[in-house]
Amino acid sequence: MDATGLHTPGHATSGQPDLSPSAMAARLERLRAAKPRVHAITNNVAQNFTANLLLAAGALPSTTIAPDEIFHFIARADALLVNLGTLDTDRRAAIPMAIAAAEAQSKPWVLDPVYVDASPPRLAFARQCLASKPTLLRANAAEGATLLGNAADIPGAAQRHGCVIALTGVRDMVSDGTRTAHIDNGHVLMARVTAMGCAGTALIAAFSAIESDAYLATATALVVLGVAGEMAGERASGPGSFPAAFLDALAGLDEAALTDYAKVS
Amino acid sequence: MDATGLHTPGHATSGQPDLSPSAMAARLERLRAAKPRVHAITNNVAQNFTANLLLAAGALPSTTIAPDEIFHFIARADALLVNLGTLDTDRRAAIPMAIAAAEAQSKPWVLDPVYVDASPPRLAFARQCLASKPTLLRANAAEGATLLGNAADIPGAAQRHGCVIALTGVRDMVSDGTRTAHIDNGHVLMARVTAMGCAGTALIAAFSAIESDAYLATATALVVLGVAGEMAGERASGPGSFPAAFLDALAGLDEAALTDYAKVS
Amino acid sequence: MDATGLHTPGHATSGQPDLSPSAMAARLERLRAAKPRVHAITNNVAQNFTANLLLAAGALPSTTIAPDEIFHFIARADALLVNLGTLDTDRRAAIPMAIAAAEAQSKPWVLDPVYVDASPPRLAFARQCLASKPTLLRANAAEGATLLGNAADIPGAAQRHGCVIALTGVRDMVSDGTRTAHIDNGHVLMARVTAMGCAGTALIAAFSAIESDAYLATATALVVLGVAGEMAGERASGPGSFPAAFLDALAGLDEAALTDYAKVS
Repeated sequence: MDATGLHTPGHATSGQPDLSPSAMAARLERLRAAKPRVHAITNNVAQNFTANLLLAAGALPSTTIAPDEIFHFIARADALLVNLGTLDTDRRAAIPMAIAAAEAQSKPWVLDPVYVDASPPRLAFARQCLASKPTLLRANAAEGATLLGNAADIPGAAQRHGCVIALTGVRDMVSDGTRTAHIDNGHVLMARVTAMGCAGTALIAAFSAIESDAYLATATALVVLGVAGEMAGERASGPGSFPAAFLDALAGLDEAALTDYAKVS
Repeated sequence: MDATGLHTPGHATSGQPDLSPSAMAARLERLRAAKPRVHAITNNVAQNFTANLLLAAGALPSTTIAPDEIFHFIARADALLVNLGTLDTDRRAAIPMAIAAAEAQSKPWVLDPVYVDASPPRLAFARQCLASKPTLLRANAAEGATLLGNAADIPGAAQRHGCVIALTGVRDMVSDGTRTAHIDNGHVLMARVTAMGCAGTALIAAFSAIESDAYLATATALVVLGVAGEMAGERASGPGSFPAAFLDALAGLDEAALTDYAKVS
Repeated sequence: MDATGLHTPGHATSGQPDLSPSAMAARLERLRAAKPRVHAITNNVAQNFTANLLLAAGALPSTTIAPDEIFHFIARADALLVNLGTLDTDRRAAIPMAIAAAEAQSKPWVLDPVYVDASPPRLAFARQCLASKPTLLRANAAEGATLLGNAADIPGAAQRHGCVIALTGVRDMVSDGTRTAHIDNGHVLMARVTAMGCAGTALIAAFSAIESDAYLATATALVVLGVAGEMAGERASGPGSFPAAFLDALAGLDEAALTDYAKVS
């Protein structure tokens, strides 16, 4: 996320043609056409905004956490989000079952180890999840440092853990161990609204449902998220009006906006 | 819900005088004057929007799911909503107790079997709930087909199950087995916002608290919901700004708006 | 909360210099600079809005209720909110542990006994919480009358229970048993939006993290809340657009606004 929030013209000529504005816009159109189902096991604070973000992006959310229903919901889903934000009894029971179901059915799943830096029991649980090799791990700097050890070496961590890793902040980094992208989109107000990061990981899950290359899915989702955030930041009067402006921008995002705003290198 | 979202003048001259704009507006005024309490056992995603919709309509929400408190909250409520959207442990324990309390106290209760098409354990649970004869069952096409068998024959299903049935979609149908109404209000953005259907069932519960004829309560609620949606669709810039515009429209809805927009036949 | 919602110039010359607009504005600036962490155990309906209100005010929220994580989250928090709005199994187990942790670590904690007038089991639970001597108790008239007995004598109740007590309504009263303040800010739309009171108690927790005089922290929070409500009421088109306008106003609130709007006596 860009710390200034000021819009300067984008520079998406990253030398990675798969992350050009037109390639990312084509991926977004595929998402809107496919309407993938994303099963989101996420925290109580984030559930509503996550569902609305997925709908605004063109995906279809479900959020059940009842253990005896998880298998059935994963069976019809195209991707799974596992967010550790509020690990109450039902969620803790549901998560290993959901991961096992996603693996058994070869469906992409993404891990968001929220506040893993705050709670040793959560860190232990997150390590178990990570050992199950998610398609993608997204964390902020503090969470990444706690869970990955040397978070400065994202490509190395991606190779060690066998998954794409995204570390988000003022500058987002995405790596699959071989390819690495840096994304400088975003707006300061994104940090003044709860669940923005959590919902962003849900968007990664939605893109991973329609793009089998998880590195490209993740980078595209983070660019789309940051561009929608910048467009919303230009319209919003503060953190209260920001979420609605953000979802409106996300629903209307097109190649012209990506060309104008995307900053990938 | 109308698939186009384009406003064409309403046609409420349905031949059912109890569903004329003035009759529906009088019911809405009664709701606002009575401020009925609605106890809403609903899913995690829908809780906040449901409470805000009930408040915008003039009702007073409560949402407790703790088993040992359910009886006390039903005792002071005027209607009960049972939504099966997220059947975690506490909710599953609370729902049969809430239904039993509503029956013992002769209070109207409405059933929303969310995603019953997605999960066999949920279908079994929904069948138990339906056997307790709710005042009203609301479902979408997929849920209705799963739970009712032949969902095309709504009047027959209403007679068989001894309750009013509403099947909502591009066109809403409501029947008590004798009378049937079709409602063509709504807006495409209503499907791009989470919990709109869930909150709509809560509005049916609120109307059933002040209108003992459940068929009229349900049809009125669905018209009010669809008209507020159309008015909001004219003002909103996308799915993000839609919910606020919807609640503003609902809070200000009057007979003039119903005359202009309502499409009941 | 003012019942009319009409803005008349504020009168903050209460004879209490610590509640002058400049003193309150200085406290708000300290909150924004310190970015205190508030751990909020609150109800399902209020969680998202509470987190967004804390962020808009400049604080950092966490909302975990898992019993084995509570101690760790309290350890890094600067204040604790205990809201009894939805006492499901996990929350009921977590609350006594959270209170014990806050006491052991000498951190301020505030109690919001939502709907204690509706449920005898909840009243018994609230009495146990109150016996642990919170820093501050906030209640509405019905909750206060149920929990405190003679709620008309707030200073006496504050002395008996050894904590600051705030009774909120058309007119808010705050007392520590010696000093008493009356606050006449607010807007009618605040009662048409769910969780406004719950989130307000969270704001008291945030102020108590940076102001050790709990009476001043509480009165300042309630004035800030009411002033933001009045400013939002001037901009909002109804209960739907009110919450966003409220958070925008809160994020931008300054000494000029407090001078213009604050009504403390």
